[in-house]
Amino acid sequence: MEKIEKKRLDALRRVMAQQGIDCCIINSTDPHQSEIPAAHWRGREWMTGFKSENGTNGIAVVTKDRAYVWTDNRFFIQARQQLEGTGFEMMPLDGPEGVDLVEYIADMMPEDSVVAIDGMTFSSTDAEKMREAFEEAGLHFATDFPMFDYIWPDRPEQPLNRLFIHDEDIVGETVESKISRILTEVDKEGADAILISALDDIAWATNLRAAGDVVFSPMFLAYLYLDKEGSRILFINEKKLTEEVREFLKKYDIEIRGYDEVTRFAETLSPSSCVLIDPSLTSITIAEAIPTAIEGGKGVAKLKSVKNETMLAHWRTAMEKDGVALVKLFKWIDEEFPAGKLTEMSIARKLRECRLADPDCVDESFAAIVGWNSHGAIVHYEPSDETDVPVTGQGLLLIDSGGQYTHGTTDITRTVALGGEPTAEQKHDFTLVLKGMIALATATFPKGTRGAQLDILARRYLWNEGKAYYHGTGHGVGFFINCHEGPAQIRMNDIPVPLEPGMVMSDEPGLYIEGKYGIRCENMLAVEHWKNNEFGEFYRFRNLTLFPFDRNLIEWEIITPEEKRWLESYNKEIIERLSPLLDADEKKWLESKING
Amino acid sequence: MEKIEKKRLDALRRVMAQQGIDCCIINSTDPHQSEIPAAHWRGREWMTGFKSENGTNGIAVVTKDRAYVWTDNRFFIQARQQLEGTGFEMMPLDGPEGVDLVEYIADMMPEDSVVAIDGMTFSSTDAEKMREAFEEAGLHFATDFPMFDYIWPDRPEQPLNRLFIHDEDIVGETVESKISRILTEVDKEGADAILISALDDIAWATNLRAAGDVVFSPMFLAYLYLDKEGSRILFINEKKLTEEVREFLKKYDIEIRGYDEVTRFAETLSPSSCVLIDPSLTSITIAEAIPTAIEGGKGVAKLKSVKNETMLAHWRTAMEKDGVALVKLFKWIDEEFPAGKLTEMSIARKLRECRLADPDCVDESFAAIVGWNSHGAIVHYEPSDETDVPVTGQGLLLIDSGGQYTHGTTDITRTVALGGEPTAEQKHDFTLVLKGMIALATATFPKGTRGAQLDILARRYLWNEGKAYYHGTGHGVGFFINCHEGPAQIRMNDIPVPLEPGMVMSDEPGLYIEGKYGIRCENMLAVEHWKNNEFGEFYRFRNLTLFPFDRNLIEWEIITPEEKRWLESYNKEIIERLSPLLDADEKKWLESKING
Repeated sequence: MEKIEKKRLDALRRVMAQQGIDCCIINSTDPHQSEIPAAHWRGREWMTGFKSENGTNGIAVVTKDRAYVWTDNRFFIQARQQLEGTGFEMMPLDGPEGVDLVEYIADMMPEDSVVAIDGMTFSSTDAEKMREAFEEAGLHFATDFPMFDYIWPDRPEQPLNRLFIHDEDIVGETVESKISRILTEVDKEGADAILISALDDIAWATNLRAAGDVVFSPMFLAYLYLDKEGSRILFINEKKLTEEVREFLKKYDIEIRGYDEVTRFAETLSPSSCVLIDPSLTSITIAEAIPTAIEGGKGVAKLKSVKNETMLAHWRTAMEKDGVALVKLFKWIDEEFPAGKLTEMSIARKLRECRLADPDCVDESFAAIVGWNSHGAIVHYEPSDETDVPVTGQGLLLIDSGGQYTHGTTDITRTVALGGEPTAEQKHDFTLVLKGMIALATATFPKGTRGAQLDILARRYLWNEGKAYYHGTGHGVGFFINCHEGPAQIRMNDIPVPLEPGMVMSDEPGLYIEGKYGIRCENMLAVEHWKNNEFGEFYRFRNLTLFPFDRNLIEWEIITPEEKRWLESYNKEIIERLSPLLDADEKKWLESKING
Repeated sequence: MEKIEKKRLDALRRVMAQQGIDCCIINSTDPHQSEIPAAHWRGREWMTGFKSENGTNGIAVVTKDRAYVWTDNRFFIQARQQLEGTGFEMMPLDGPEGVDLVEYIADMMPEDSVVAIDGMTFSSTDAEKMREAFEEAGLHFATDFPMFDYIWPDRPEQPLNRLFIHDEDIVGETVESKISRILTEVDKEGADAILISALDDIAWATNLRAAGDVVFSPMFLAYLYLDKEGSRILFINEKKLTEEVREFLKKYDIEIRGYDEVTRFAETLSPSSCVLIDPSLTSITIAEAIPTAIEGGKGVAKLKSVKNETMLAHWRTAMEKDGVALVKLFKWIDEEFPAGKLTEMSIARKLRECRLADPDCVDESFAAIVGWNSHGAIVHYEPSDETDVPVTGQGLLLIDSGGQYTHGTTDITRTVALGGEPTAEQKHDFTLVLKGMIALATATFPKGTRGAQLDILARRYLWNEGKAYYHGTGHGVGFFINCHEGPAQIRMNDIPVPLEPGMVMSDEPGLYIEGKYGIRCENMLAVEHWKNNEFGEFYRFRNLTLFPFDRNLIEWEIITPEEKRWLESYNKEIIERLSPLLDADEKKWLESKING
């Protein structure tokens, strides 16, 4: 059966032939390297029919007679099915059969072939790697082929969601102060100006947000240019600006120019002005347009990752609201479970409903993971209509979810036993994971310590028994922006960024028993100053998340007195802070969960 | 008062003037970047009069009218004293006033000045950094100025110690097998040949040793060239070779050429042959002489760091002998202490005597650290006639020492209380350190784990109380070669080398209370396979060291049941394995130490 995608492929090949292009590479992201781009930039999906859950991890390659989609092992089965009849074949990006896309093209294409990309959708870093490999193989590399301008008649518009101001009372810092701190970083890196492509950095710097431009994160499509001479330019579609936002920008002397004008603007910059860019997030088209670019620019992400006391105080509110939402959800699950009608999808829908009931919650912060038994063991599992299963019988339910509250982003995982007494194995494994989570949450460490040094605290109870999980233990969490935020991380591989007071990190060890169940316990932690003494300055974590762990899953025999005290004090805080926000039934339910 | 060194400085300046050199930089090492070079290469000491304990960490810079010695903060006071009247001034290499030597020269010298070094004594890595900075500053850089050939009339000969064979029964692998494995590494790195400058790699590869060429390590001065065509050349002074060693080399088709011929040989290599070198250990003169050099070559160090079962079995013997030596030492200390005549130096001398009483012990493996009370808090302290103090009163004695046994190198630190009951503070601090040592010794971890991930296990009991030490927790230990061996390490900064079965690491947390006392507990551990399962392959450590910890220093209240079991089982092994080697008095002493 031939699908509509085959016709699209033919159309692309006609354009390629007209323009003398022998091979074209189609990326799955937008000009800001967004994880989940808006529909306007989902041309690869439109072209190939392969729709991966989060829109990414599919790069298409088209030549005169072959067409491929590279994707990672999470999507092998799905991609093979969806690509049937489209003219595209699946290629494995990783795993034992993994094929390097760039090497493959360099080997496959005859000398002097022209390989083209849309330079707006590839980062400078990635495109430069391609250029090097292709030129070494005697190929020509063109970065100016916006293929979808020619062949996608019903291409969705660029998103036009309206911006709103993220209140200064909540973020605790003026735009003026942020711009001044950014320019100090620019100066430190030896530059005169900065062109920011990272949407989260722009949202942070301008105290502005929008809903809908990017799924699950209230950022908006724009570029921000700042220089030491005082120029401040936001490149954005004017239709996105309300009068209030225009006034706000004017107040900070931020000039407005069209979103699509950025490349032309870059070309007109003076060669004597060194412009700082982050090459991993700036598209090659823009990077090449700048006469004198300096690579670096991670300093802005670092500034953004350190949250001030005002933000942390507001995060307390968000955490209380999130705790209430989870009380409502898990109470509902307890009530509905006996009837045997629950499914992963119905729980996911209810979860969304519980969070969005609060007017401050703009969206979920990522697609919730609701995994029952064996589905819980699939680390990146998201329930869908195709995979949904009834939540019945005995087992473990893993729910990893979060909300975008204007007072702070949340990310929490709880694993609960349903359908009677959990097995000794389930309890033992759960307790090992919980002990790891507590060990990291209670760590104290000197200034300069990196996440990779602390990571083992969350893993060692598992390692002691020859068990392990292979994802990161903790990521930075943004403040009403991206739920996954850099640059600091807590993971096995070394990220050379020390933890600093004000950074907010997740703490989420897990264990996944294939075909049986998955366990993960996740709280959010803020790094804070602890003490200074003759040995230096020490930091510790302050816990932010408010929802109890399933006491039925705890094997008390392997809980130490210190861990027990931590749990008691944690539960006490939950009761104290959530009770005033609950009705009598909810309060009773929460108390019964905590006191058994 | 003008010293003899001032005349030497004048002599150097005359030669510099004759040769048109405006600035010369004098290093403190030999052509192999040895930590403690032989007298022949101690020209910087001869020239400046500054004698740092271990011969290194002093780089001299001489211009027409200024002369400096850069050194690190351990030697600031001593350097200032010793340099008085020599015409040299001290410059701080580190600390708050630290001055970058290369930048300083680049700033100080007028354009077109000639800066010269003896290229044999600077690594390619260091010299290339200089070249870049100097050329950027408009200076000329010459690497062919062997200054001591002109001005050091009574320069000591190169060492001529005789080589001996390190028995194949002890090392468990033939030279043939090692060469074959090295050539596999050479191939992996895309090279055709390798020129090895690292003395420990050469000793390992050839199963040869010598005593005296390098202090504390039985290595010998040589270069080793191997290529895929079958050429095997050892560049060495022939006077160092006995008939037996000549025969041994012949058996493995290893050709002998003069030590000083290596540079000329390198020049004659074919440009089509890619020669692998380690630029951080190969002198710039040799690196530049090779027509086609490839940088890398750390693979040999990696091969060397993984010890086979034969070596590990022999190490058991070395550990028993070392344990016996320490029993004799500490029994003697207990007996002599009441008389009040002990000093740090007398203990260090007795310690050396106890070790060298065994015919298999060729030397100590480093200069023993014997630190009483406040001296124990100086991390790099070595007693000398100038610093020696009586070991009397109450306090803590820290002894860090080791032996070069033909059956394996040892490295052990014990801290003991003398002169009555230790204070609660001493006991508490000691126990925190001991708990850390045990935590690392009992760690289990998946394949791929690096030392930096495990490091916190040794530190966390201290960190929990806002205490810290800032040296590495563990280094690799060589097998009858260098006591400090790479590439794997267990420390806060990340070394991207995973721990592998067969690696032998030290485990030595500490705590240093300035002006009061120092504590360190150190055992040696071998990485070994533990188990394979659905979660991957797991490793653990096997303890090698055999000597008890001072039970009077243990605060039993904070020792967990698991730690107590570990200590009991450790003590049982010590009794079982050392007792057969002790006389009745020693046995009684050891038992009393263990059983209290």
